[in-house]
Amino acid sequence: MPLNQMWKLTSRPVGRFKPEDFTWAEEPLPDPQDGQVLVRQVYLSLDPTNRGWADATPTYLPPLPLGSTMRGLGLGVVEASRHPGFSPGRLVQGMLGWQAYYLGDGRGLTAFDAMPGVPLDAYPAVFGHIGATAYFGLLEIGQPRPGETVVVSGAAGAVGSLVGQIAKLHGCRAVGIAGSDEKCRWLTEELGFDAAINYKARMGPLKHRLAELCPQGIDVYFDNVGGDILDTALTLANQRGRIVICGLISQYNSTEPPAGPRAFGYVLLRRLRIEGFIVLDYAARFPEAFAALGRWLADGRLKYRVDVVEGLDQAPVAINRLFDGANTGKLLVKI
Amino acid sequence: MPLNQMWKLTSRPVGRFKPEDFTWAEEPLPDPQDGQVLVRQVYLSLDPTNRGWADATPTYLPPLPLGSTMRGLGLGVVEASRHPGFSPGRLVQGMLGWQAYYLGDGRGLTAFDAMPGVPLDAYPAVFGHIGATAYFGLLEIGQPRPGETVVVSGAAGAVGSLVGQIAKLHGCRAVGIAGSDEKCRWLTEELGFDAAINYKARMGPLKHRLAELCPQGIDVYFDNVGGDILDTALTLANQRGRIVICGLISQYNSTEPPAGPRAFGYVLLRRLRIEGFIVLDYAARFPEAFAALGRWLADGRLKYRVDVVEGLDQAPVAINRLFDGANTGKLLVKI
Repeated sequence: MPLNQMWKLTSRPVGRFKPEDFTWAEEPLPDPQDGQVLVRQVYLSLDPTNRGWADATPTYLPPLPLGSTMRGLGLGVVEASRHPGFSPGRLVQGMLGWQAYYLGDGRGLTAFDAMPGVPLDAYPAVFGHIGATAYFGLLEIGQPRPGETVVVSGAAGAVGSLVGQIAKLHGCRAVGIAGSDEKCRWLTEELGFDAAINYKARMGPLKHRLAELCPQGIDVYFDNVGGDILDTALTLANQRGRIVICGLISQYNSTEPPAGPRAFGYVLLRRLRIEGFIVLDYAARFPEAFAALGRWLADGRLKYRVDVVEGLDQAPVAINRLFDGANTGKLLVKI
Repeated sequence: MPLNQMWKLTSRPVGRFKPEDFTWAEEPLPDPQDGQVLVRQVYLSLDPTNRGWADATPTYLPPLPLGSTMRGLGLGVVEASRHPGFSPGRLVQGMLGWQAYYLGDGRGLTAFDAMPGVPLDAYPAVFGHIGATAYFGLLEIGQPRPGETVVVSGAAGAVGSLVGQIAKLHGCRAVGIAGSDEKCRWLTEELGFDAAINYKARMGPLKHRLAELCPQGIDVYFDNVGGDILDTALTLANQRGRIVICGLISQYNSTEPPAGPRAFGYVLLRRLRIEGFIVLDYAARFPEAFAALGRWLADGRLKYRVDVVEGLDQAPVAINRLFDGANTGKLLVKI
């Protein structure tokens, strides 16, 4: 019987993930039984939200029991199937886990057809949870109108880089906040953001620099990070500004309860709307997002970048690239 | 020439208002010039938001210059007029200020006709900014649906007491949070709230007591107070819960920047919508609110209470009744 390889979560991380929170396992891989599908994983997606999944406290998903294969989204190919919904050779995306092969009942997996001319890495980077998050988060929750200023944090990340481009496609001014000059250059020179700020550069208070780049104030702030950057954006928000809370990555590794936004009083003064958002709620509408994203990609009006780490064995270390700010674009593990 | 009496704001309050922040003045009261109206004030409305108006930093209104008559809403009767919009004998509401007589161009004042059978104190308590705040804040921002649980803080205050009753009229479960057993009894026994909690009673964590009274969680939280009570409500909010930020009274006297909501992570986990709200934005739609409130009041399905302090000279002391939790219902100064 062939072997499957996997990372099991065997202790709860304190602060950042550490390699010793995971245990490498090799286990026999049986043939699919009736109703089961066997998927060979090609790209494992590493996402900031993975950190919360490893905690003992429930998030928007139940906590993962210790000893389980680490939960993760991924893209794969059906190798064998005794499930009517999955035929061999089809592509699937979904909760494949941190393992080389998925064997199960296919719940939470979506089979799809490759689009002509679209490279395989575009699916996890655009035509999956990432693209849907950027699309629905910005357009449904943020409700940007042409001419408005959209600011996005984590702008060089997988979601943020799409958000700014979608904002531009909707006639908005797009300003990104990212963690290096190189990322900022990518945003403005390649992706067409109107401006970008390296929040790590010591060039005076972020508030002043952001205010300078947003002379009309901020109408939509798409937040991936929380913390001080959220506070800064709140103070610059226009009346009836919309704050999309897509992620709070600055807090995911906190070992103490994080402070709340100190600038919360602006919610009242400026009649702001802050709304949290989990893309799973939009699963039924993903095709709508993918159709639009596909048109823009084909037209060359939407670009993406992937940061690919080779080998499943690298996953426990690679995931911290998200929290180090090391990745630009979508972080993937190629298996 | 007759004299007008007024309180001028002569120093910026630090923490709570202190009587010495104001200076009593008596000044000659000339006859109205062309385009002016003279109003005799009957009820001066004292509201938590007055505290922010006295600060040097702008709120949703520009800061009041030191030496000016303190800004305040009120109800009065037109005594004399050379303004086509105001005829003698008519009732008006608006920014009359902390003074016995208003003389000015009438900007920000609304003339209205008394409704038969409606006592005069019902106008500042219901048919003015208070009623409109409760009506639009709950219905437009909170979007309650029948069967949902609506929790309101500052529930025995002018706005909160109306919010719970409007929630009941919309088929919701209404739970109030107030600062004394007596207030709680008023809410449940007279106003028809389903339940009320005295947050000052030492009966275990507020979270447990509120959870007990909201077995289906919280769908709409109408916040007048901010701080710990907001945090507690966030942790009990249902998915897609709506948080109406109408006031943050617990912070208005802070001399240090208040902490933000520590439970902010729930915004993401539970996909909450937090929205700030200033009733002035709805001024054009006040008649719609007053029509509904008037029907309910006439039917006996809506009740209100006023806490009347006699004499303009009492205003600087009386205003702290709002921050002491001393008042039940609408705090007014009768002039």
